[in-house]
Amino acid sequence: MNKIYETSLLLDFYGQLLTDRQYEILDLHYNNDFTLTEIAEQLNISRQGVYDNEKRGRALLVEYENKLGLLGKFSQQKHKAQNVLEMMKKLRPDELGKENTDIIEKVITEIEDLANNI
Amino acid sequence: MNKIYETSLLLDFYGQLLTDRQYEILDLHYNNDFTLTEIAEQLNISRQGVYDNEKRGRALLVEYENKLGLLGKFSQQKHKAQNVLEMMKKLRPDELGKENTDIIEKVITEIEDLANNI
Repeated sequence: MNKIYETSLLLDFYGQLLTDRQYEILDLHYNNDFTLTEIAEQLNISRQGVYDNEKRGRALLVEYENKLGLLGKFSQQKHKAQNVLEMMKKLRPDELGKENTDIIEKVITEIEDLANNI
Repeated sequence: MNKIYETSLLLDFYGQLLTDRQYEILDLHYNNDFTLTEIAEQLNISRQGVYDNEKRGRALLVEYENKLGLLGKFSQQKHKAQNVLEMMKKLRPDELGKENTDIIEKVITEIEDLANNI
């Protein structure tokens, strides 16, 4: 997982445990592609202030995940749901029958929801 | 959800953010059915000390869930997986065909895992 995507997910999971300023800076940088210089201008604070908050905020997010591992747990569940979807794609529709086909369609919708909801 | 079950789940999710003492007391009380008096004797501290740690520890767990909502998110996913299992039980095995039956069996095993893994 690359650093930008990982931080964006961690921010989604644990962002509410950061200070408002840390959250704001990480959100601008990792979710909205602002450079640290652009953030400093935008928030009217020093580049060093942005850098320190970014570093500390990200370190906290990583620390929370190391302690709680909930992003890892969710990712595993998501991966499992995606595997199930792959398996269901191999079903032979010509051998299902009408009632079963209806059920399978509903099941696939639900599992797609599980696989994407993270 | 009753208080004991809820606290036990919260402890599983956020327990690593508590102090060792808070965790120990909540674990003994909510996972191992010790009374606060028994815990005081066991740890050789005052009953008031146990009470304060239990109260503060539980308040922190509730606060973390209010901020992050990850237990709620997990519970929803689990509920969805259980719904899918219920739907799959309505499949008519006599109209599936051999290959589809094999796939469905594997899928059910995976979804049971999703439904129970919380």
